[in-house]
Amino acid sequence: MSTLNRQIVLASRPQGEVKPDNFRLVETPLAPLADGQVRVRNHFLSLDPYMRGRMNESKSYAAAQPLDEVMIGGTVGEVVESKNAHFAVGDRVVGMGGWQEFVTVDASQRGVLQKVDTTHIPLSAYLGAVGMPGVTAWYGLVKIIAPKAGETVVVSAGSGAVGSAVGQLAKARGARAVGIAGGADKCRYVTEELGFDACIDYKQHGDVKSLSAALKAACPNGIDGYFENVGGIILDAVLLRANAFSRIAMCGMISGYNGEPIPMAAPQLILVNRMKVEGFIVSEHMEVWPEALKELGTLVATGKLKYRETIADGLAAAPEAFIGLLKGRNFGKQLVKLV
Amino acid sequence: MSTLNRQIVLASRPQGEVKPDNFRLVETPLAPLADGQVRVRNHFLSLDPYMRGRMNESKSYAAAQPLDEVMIGGTVGEVVESKNAHFAVGDRVVGMGGWQEFVTVDASQRGVLQKVDTTHIPLSAYLGAVGMPGVTAWYGLVKIIAPKAGETVVVSAGSGAVGSAVGQLAKARGARAVGIAGGADKCRYVTEELGFDACIDYKQHGDVKSLSAALKAACPNGIDGYFENVGGIILDAVLLRANAFSRIAMCGMISGYNGEPIPMAAPQLILVNRMKVEGFIVSEHMEVWPEALKELGTLVATGKLKYRETIADGLAAAPEAFIGLLKGRNFGKQLVKLV
Repeated sequence: MSTLNRQIVLASRPQGEVKPDNFRLVETPLAPLADGQVRVRNHFLSLDPYMRGRMNESKSYAAAQPLDEVMIGGTVGEVVESKNAHFAVGDRVVGMGGWQEFVTVDASQRGVLQKVDTTHIPLSAYLGAVGMPGVTAWYGLVKIIAPKAGETVVVSAGSGAVGSAVGQLAKARGARAVGIAGGADKCRYVTEELGFDACIDYKQHGDVKSLSAALKAACPNGIDGYFENVGGIILDAVLLRANAFSRIAMCGMISGYNGEPIPMAAPQLILVNRMKVEGFIVSEHMEVWPEALKELGTLVATGKLKYRETIADGLAAAPEAFIGLLKGRNFGKQLVKLV
Repeated sequence: MSTLNRQIVLASRPQGEVKPDNFRLVETPLAPLADGQVRVRNHFLSLDPYMRGRMNESKSYAAAQPLDEVMIGGTVGEVVESKNAHFAVGDRVVGMGGWQEFVTVDASQRGVLQKVDTTHIPLSAYLGAVGMPGVTAWYGLVKIIAPKAGETVVVSAGSGAVGSAVGQLAKARGARAVGIAGGADKCRYVTEELGFDACIDYKQHGDVKSLSAALKAACPNGIDGYFENVGGIILDAVLLRANAFSRIAMCGMISGYNGEPIPMAAPQLILVNRMKVEGFIVSEHMEVWPEALKELGTLVATGKLKYRETIADGLAAAPEAFIGLLKGRNFGKQLVKLV
């Protein structure tokens, strides 16, 4: 049994773009377990846009990631040692294990570690479609956008872990689903594999006018719901095509994560169109997780909810993979495979 | 009995600011009444910011005011002739009589004309605190902001017909009410007569930073609800002081009515603070009017809801009074007295 843990800590806060030297890989000894503790070998580490916000000192919706501590992050893995009656060696579990090979937790605290069933659902899916990104998609779509059959739902970062689920959940409710993604490959995947009705390659549209024209073509009946992952001119273009009583679920604004200004050009359209714009963080709505995970798990197990993963190999690859995620280089859910 | 009606029609659409020559006063003969019709002598004409939007050709939430037709507008008056069993000469009524001395309507259509009781409530109040502006305040405050006791509610145009009701309704619910108004006189009125906890004179603050500092001082516990009547840098400043889970009711954006750009500098704050921003038009929520009017009428009749009126004299004064309203020259509800 290994006695050494490898971890990635936050070495410094980014000035603008994240750089590899904002992170540092360290090795630390693994202490013997105390009563109640469980040790998990992390198999997959989840990389998610929200981590960028945590790297800043400034006010965000969550506490800042402390310097010199292990980077926060969701993980799935296998119990390799247990001094807790509820967990046995070999159990597959999901938790917030962080950017490290092993995580040692007091598993008697409720919710710290969840056992998962990998009979019909791959372990890694618990970090994606059947995990936080899936529930994020579900909450924004079902609780904020609440599309009726026949309405049109647009989602930015449409090929990503969250966006791909938003569109498929919208389709399952009889809505028209339109993705926005970067590049022809991603757009082809969104329409041909995920079954969205249309996808707009934002790289082909450099300004609001061009994006707005593309949205008009893709959404002949206007836009009733928009799931926002990026912000900036995409949001401006969507507002120009928004219908009366349309809803925007604000989930992320990755285009402003490095501190660039991302003004909304015409907020008066929220009034003119009597829109509802609502920001949310899925971890503040734990009451919906059981219902959401039930639908998501069933859809994944039956092959009706598709997803794609980009997998980086080994802990040391995590910083570059994270930087790539922020630049849209991943295709679907970005993971780091540790085992 | 008069056989001539005087009316103000929309002569041309404004290019930027509204000018007097966008209107034209015309005289038209009064035709004999048909069965079911009622003729009302308008006593007061209501001037409201929403009329500015109607003057444009461009997409807004309502049909454009047609050229060469009588300007739309709420009125109160007295029935002077009736061929309708439900209305008698002398009845006091409220309706959408428009910018004219007499209005002739088919009163058998439900909702076209409402009889009102002026025993405890002055006739003109049915155009203000116990009319559309009052219900507008009520809907945005009660249905969107929904303040809890101890929360802080900010309202722009705080001395106006809508804003003054917003703050007093917020106070009645145990919230802290903070107004934003133009000038020391209006601010003094808002705090000393209306009973708001504080009022910020926006004319003393030329930029977002200064406004935001003033809001910080007036709202030591941050802002939980904001009732938006003006837009622009006031909205930006409010967003900088908004609390987690705060709500913005978007009722008007008078600062952009002439077509100037009024971008929202940092829409990402909606996400960071998990805010809800909702635009509304009170005429689309007729289901709340009875409940709202009951509360507003009781408060006015018992002297607990105060309001102020600026009264222009005679129909010919309406255009200049309307232009003054758009520039904030009125103090409280802007009316035109016709009788």
